[in-house]
Amino acid sequence: MKDFRQQALDYHQFPSPGKIGIELTTPAETSQDLSLAYSPGVAEPVREIAENPDAVYQYTGKGNTVAVITNGTAILGLGNLGGMAAKPVMEGKALLFKRFADINSFDIEVKHKTVEEFVNTVANIADSFGGINLEDIKAPECFEIEKALIERCKIPVFHDDQHGTAIVTAAGMINALEIQGKDIKQANIVCMGAGAAAIACMELLISCGAQREKIYMLDTKGVIHTRRDDLNEYKKLFANNTDKRTLEDVIDGADVFVGVSGPDLLTAEHVKLMAENPVIFACSNPDPEIKPEVALAARNDLIIATGRSDYPNQVNNVLCFPFIFRGALDVRARTINDAMKVACVHAIREIAKEEVPAEVLAASGDVELNFGKNYIIPKPMDPRLCHRVAKAVARAAVDSGVAGLELPEKYQD
Amino acid sequence: MKDFRQQALDYHQFPSPGKIGIELTTPAETSQDLSLAYSPGVAEPVREIAENPDAVYQYTGKGNTVAVITNGTAILGLGNLGGMAAKPVMEGKALLFKRFADINSFDIEVKHKTVEEFVNTVANIADSFGGINLEDIKAPECFEIEKALIERCKIPVFHDDQHGTAIVTAAGMINALEIQGKDIKQANIVCMGAGAAAIACMELLISCGAQREKIYMLDTKGVIHTRRDDLNEYKKLFANNTDKRTLEDVIDGADVFVGVSGPDLLTAEHVKLMAENPVIFACSNPDPEIKPEVALAARNDLIIATGRSDYPNQVNNVLCFPFIFRGALDVRARTINDAMKVACVHAIREIAKEEVPAEVLAASGDVELNFGKNYIIPKPMDPRLCHRVAKAVARAAVDSGVAGLELPEKYQD
Repeated sequence: MKDFRQQALDYHQFPSPGKIGIELTTPAETSQDLSLAYSPGVAEPVREIAENPDAVYQYTGKGNTVAVITNGTAILGLGNLGGMAAKPVMEGKALLFKRFADINSFDIEVKHKTVEEFVNTVANIADSFGGINLEDIKAPECFEIEKALIERCKIPVFHDDQHGTAIVTAAGMINALEIQGKDIKQANIVCMGAGAAAIACMELLISCGAQREKIYMLDTKGVIHTRRDDLNEYKKLFANNTDKRTLEDVIDGADVFVGVSGPDLLTAEHVKLMAENPVIFACSNPDPEIKPEVALAARNDLIIATGRSDYPNQVNNVLCFPFIFRGALDVRARTINDAMKVACVHAIREIAKEEVPAEVLAASGDVELNFGKNYIIPKPMDPRLCHRVAKAVARAAVDSGVAGLELPEKYQD
Repeated sequence: MKDFRQQALDYHQFPSPGKIGIELTTPAETSQDLSLAYSPGVAEPVREIAENPDAVYQYTGKGNTVAVITNGTAILGLGNLGGMAAKPVMEGKALLFKRFADINSFDIEVKHKTVEEFVNTVANIADSFGGINLEDIKAPECFEIEKALIERCKIPVFHDDQHGTAIVTAAGMINALEIQGKDIKQANIVCMGAGAAAIACMELLISCGAQREKIYMLDTKGVIHTRRDDLNEYKKLFANNTDKRTLEDVIDGADVFVGVSGPDLLTAEHVKLMAENPVIFACSNPDPEIKPEVALAARNDLIIATGRSDYPNQVNNVLCFPFIFRGALDVRARTINDAMKVACVHAIREIAKEEVPAEVLAASGDVELNFGKNYIIPKPMDPRLCHRVAKAVARAAVDSGVAGLELPEKYQD
């Protein structure tokens, strides 16, 4: 049998290079078809849109199109390899948008020298799309880029590595803490990693009740504390007024470990130092901060989640990004605000508490999926996700005043 | 029955807004599929491309993707209506790329203040694609834009309004002059219009043998001559050292009229002034400079072509752009040079001289299509076009040293 590497390369090479293509959604066989699709018929929607700009949503695909945009500076866990090396990931993202939410999506890789140049380039092409999913852009530039684009674009701009990760992490974390009988407000939280995902995760956990002073964030130099003078403005928000300096110092008595860093940085000894009934999210991909079997051998009162599909509790952004965009596009939201993100968190976590459909069970090899330590979050293939999550997001957009349309009938049940 | 306008609007609105969407070209049903399409499997092609940049053509769709890019400053014959109003046209172009040459294509509308900003924006995203088709950009900016992008991009950049129009015009014109027994080198040519298409048409006719001093180009102020001081650098190339000032002056004795201007600017009286056996290309769309029935009522020794599908001899860019890109992409040409354009002209015109396939006859309502006054150029639906034209272009690219690959086997017959 071919090894996994070769399977993956073959998958990307056959039947044709890449994973996505264009399909025609209207007939284009006869001369009559083409006279409607192009000249002279196409002049009619052109005139309509020239008179009424909103008609672009009626006569073109804009409203169901999301661009996946990167500069390739932080590809998966592989680092800054450039836009071209990022292209398979971006096409993969586009594939997931289509597969899970029927959103048309394609990828754009941007070359640039400065943050300003990246922002200008994307802002100049943004009108072409219904939304922009930023991807694999390194911190701290990603924060500035996202902020500037949100200000300049009339469409939702969402950096999935930050907010998608944060939303799915928060959904799983709130459920895990509930199962462990812990209050997020009292939880001591260790966050290993201080990049885009780490910062967004912690900010969203704070929005969901976590206390900033109970969070200990670590970068490659150890604990981020108030006496360090090497912190950028984003890390500074998590500078803890503490004498603790190392992972050993802060893991002692911690209720929660969130890893968005690198493989094998958390040891069995660290795990043993944690408080009773701890929660570990070891999200480094593909190799987690600690393997679940190692953690569970150290103690059995914990809940562990990873980014991997071959263990229980997979923290997977695909639980969020297709559906948060589906909801946003369906009400033509101008932006994706905090209310929409929090609604997304709760919609995802509620699904995990309900009985799973037979098809999800079957796809999971009929492993029992009952809300509990080994099932804190829905499976990516759960067919309930799209409608439920998108509905919650669309409602939140309408309720918070950022929607351009009323709630569609399909979401009024 | 619905009027044409409503049919065109309905066509763009149903079954979903727009005409193109994304399709998946690889399986994406199971968790296993997704582990190859995205994390962790996608890391493998990422690593390959990071090591060998050319592998992006092996593992992603880049090599078969053409972006259709505009700023909406010259939409069809409708003028400067902006990028959003241009979107139906751009999506239509993408549809034609897919329909005729199986090229994946999507549209990008660019906002910009200066030519430099447009060029920077497009150059920054160009690596995402295998080629760039510029569209509906007004003159004279389009010349500067195309030149700058050709210099900065490693992929073919082709302004179809210029070169697609010129190539199809030249193919038809050479055939028409042959039928009329005229030598292009001796032909007196009147070109009504001095925009992007007009200038490109005349330049290519010159490459095919026409004499610059026998060309009389007219803009809205009349004949472009050497004593005018209001000419941009592009029009200046066609400033004729002549005392003639009006269309009446220059049409007298002309062998050829090429109109890329506006409706009904050529009258029956003008036509009567032309030389024996004249050729008229009245390409304004949808309403030509003169209706064929009006021209033919004035005299019956002429050949007339228009941009319309409901008359014989339709000058339609779709005879060129899908196939010139097909050929360029198939040999990974770095650019589309003059040799490729001329090869394209001759491949198109040769097809018109051969017996047409039964399916083309049937699609044309079984009107006889024999090389002659009413059939100087192939029909858009002719299935021979893709292979024949792309092959000629690919060969010319290889022979002129701009191809990155050898000639594929399919073109070696």
